[in-house]
Amino acid sequence: MTVMRDPVANDPDVSTSIELTDAEIFDAHEGGKLAVGATASLADPRALSIAYTPGVARVSRAIAEDATLATRYTWTGRLVAVVSDGTAVLGLGDIGPRASLPVMEGKAALFKTFGGLDSIPLVLDTTDVDEIVETLVRLRPSFGAVNLEDVSAPRCFELEARLIEALDCPVMHDDQHGTAIVALAALKGAVAVQGRALGDLKVVISGAGAAGVACAKILIAAGVGEVVVLDSRGIIVAGRDGLNAVKAELAGVTNPRGITGGLAEALKGADVFLGVSSSKVPEELVATMAPESIVFALSNPDPEIHPEVAARHAAIVATGRSDFPNQINNVLAFPGVFKGALDAGARRITERMKIAAADAIHAVASDDLAADRIVPSALDPRVAIEVAAAVAEAARQDGVA
Amino acid sequence: MTVMRDPVANDPDVSTSIELTDAEIFDAHEGGKLAVGATASLADPRALSIAYTPGVARVSRAIAEDATLATRYTWTGRLVAVVSDGTAVLGLGDIGPRASLPVMEGKAALFKTFGGLDSIPLVLDTTDVDEIVETLVRLRPSFGAVNLEDVSAPRCFELEARLIEALDCPVMHDDQHGTAIVALAALKGAVAVQGRALGDLKVVISGAGAAGVACAKILIAAGVGEVVVLDSRGIIVAGRDGLNAVKAELAGVTNPRGITGGLAEALKGADVFLGVSSSKVPEELVATMAPESIVFALSNPDPEIHPEVAARHAAIVATGRSDFPNQINNVLAFPGVFKGALDAGARRITERMKIAAADAIHAVASDDLAADRIVPSALDPRVAIEVAAAVAEAARQDGVA
Repeated sequence: MTVMRDPVANDPDVSTSIELTDAEIFDAHEGGKLAVGATASLADPRALSIAYTPGVARVSRAIAEDATLATRYTWTGRLVAVVSDGTAVLGLGDIGPRASLPVMEGKAALFKTFGGLDSIPLVLDTTDVDEIVETLVRLRPSFGAVNLEDVSAPRCFELEARLIEALDCPVMHDDQHGTAIVALAALKGAVAVQGRALGDLKVVISGAGAAGVACAKILIAAGVGEVVVLDSRGIIVAGRDGLNAVKAELAGVTNPRGITGGLAEALKGADVFLGVSSSKVPEELVATMAPESIVFALSNPDPEIHPEVAARHAAIVATGRSDFPNQINNVLAFPGVFKGALDAGARRITERMKIAAADAIHAVASDDLAADRIVPSALDPRVAIEVAAAVAEAARQDGVA
Repeated sequence: MTVMRDPVANDPDVSTSIELTDAEIFDAHEGGKLAVGATASLADPRALSIAYTPGVARVSRAIAEDATLATRYTWTGRLVAVVSDGTAVLGLGDIGPRASLPVMEGKAALFKTFGGLDSIPLVLDTTDVDEIVETLVRLRPSFGAVNLEDVSAPRCFELEARLIEALDCPVMHDDQHGTAIVALAALKGAVAVQGRALGDLKVVISGAGAAGVACAKILIAAGVGEVVVLDSRGIIVAGRDGLNAVKAELAGVTNPRGITGGLAEALKGADVFLGVSSSKVPEELVATMAPESIVFALSNPDPEIHPEVAARHAAIVATGRSDFPNQINNVLAFPGVFKGALDAGARRITERMKIAAADAIHAVASDDLAADRIVPSALDPRVAIEVAAAVAEAARQDGVA
């Protein structure tokens, strides 16, 4: 029996507080993690006659006459398809749809546990954007919303945009926007603790994949003073070599001073480090940040820098892990975002709805803010309820509901 | 509030015993009839670490290394996709995928209630056979078996054959084979009551759609003496006008005496009438059948002839309805057939597995056979268990497991 320890960046002596054995992990996955049930028993003749023939024919006929009734009289009004092609799964990369399914089952379980939503994993044996869009268009009557998951960048950007265009329902790539929403909520928490304003911050984002791009956009939209993004080749700046369309667009709205170089140049004097890649950050570079610096090392399970090491220099530290304070976990966002969008009958998820979600997460934390409590616990049952209400209200304000 | 009465063929004065109001039907469908749940709670940090990050990565990695583990460590080992394009829904016809969804939710609920299987409805906004096959091939890693439902003939024959070819998993069009299996089981029950043999019977099948074709094939395979099939233009006989490929094939294996004409010519002296179309059967034609005749009037909710009318002439009468004796209901077959196929890890559903299912249904009824108890109750919990065991054993005998 192998004891699983999460490898810890920069300091192999610091192990995680939760130790998991292979046996308990595989035992818990035996037969999968989801079940579909009937909401009412069908085990007597009368119940059968209502839910199946002949009664169900009345409901089918009503929907045939008025398609909008489908949302009310089928489960699609609360059903999220968790869709992946398995190309960017956790820290594992392109492991394919079959191997991604346990992750998608876990995601569906989280939708139920935290948002009360029903959810089915649909893993696709194609990585072609056209084919994925076509498949989901054909399946459109089967679900109410799409949570894209673990699709590799830059395909994820085109895929999400194409699906939003093709499907008249909420679509969100959670690795982008879930992460961005919670990172914004956490940053609001951090500056509230410090008595600072977002507009005064210089933020460095390490990683220009799905999460990095979305974080940059939401932070700019929320009024952060300066955002600089790095990819594996260094600071993204207009005109640099190796910029795809997404990064070129990013270069146009970030890095206003036009700085060049690598992480050392970016971090010197910066207020916030936001890590959303697996690139490690040496302690000595964190030491060059501005006073009262903020470090979000979100790579999972191996943070870009161990939080206890970062804390030697930074005033506030957060990770993606449950075993350290300030866990920045998407589960704070996606259940409530989709619940709010579905509750409101929204046709899409707008920028205002995302920012409203971040504000709602921050508001739940506000009663009890501290340097090690900048966001609510990932298990706080109030969060999804507040996020859903705020997102539904924003949908109505935006006229998409 | 409208009281729904099933219109009753041939005798409008005989109403059904279960009266359903619109209000109770629509109330029961509010929000749909299915829910997805997590098989284990995720509401504490340790459970989250096992079922989601970081623990789930171990399972995903294992499946990436050995794809056969997916059946064991995801829900696909017990997950049936209930697939429809909504072209032949109940008695309603081509009402489209959205309006078909309540029926598919009901089907999924039946899979759970009677077979303990999990099931997701996938309704497709295309009626193109190529596109449906392509869509399910792309989704293949998401499920363990396919129950095709309410797809119109003759497309259903090509679609089922193409899916069996394209997918390495159990695929069955229930409107064909579920009906055929239960009809065979019922016929075995009827002849057992009468002390006759299948080989001595002349069977007339009214309807050459999905159910009629499959019933003809399984009855011939089971050794019925003579089968004659009628479509809307009369008796199917080799060389007749208006035979599509499926009916031409049927003409080659049925109607050995080469009789021509309509229902009157077919029924005269016949032992069994098996109705699987909505065409009505006049009482005076039933009167021309052989002594000790058997009438299965399976059209639902309106039988081809009211069972009490048929009983004036026939020795044994069955319908598809729960409010009369001898209900021939697919629910006796499909939960156990799919459970047996999935339990055995079968790659397909063979003819032997279907006949084994019919034998198992018949065996459950055998203890207590009578003219009004030729099949078990549709709610008998023993049936799916016995069917599953028999189907799994037949799969092993056939070498497909």
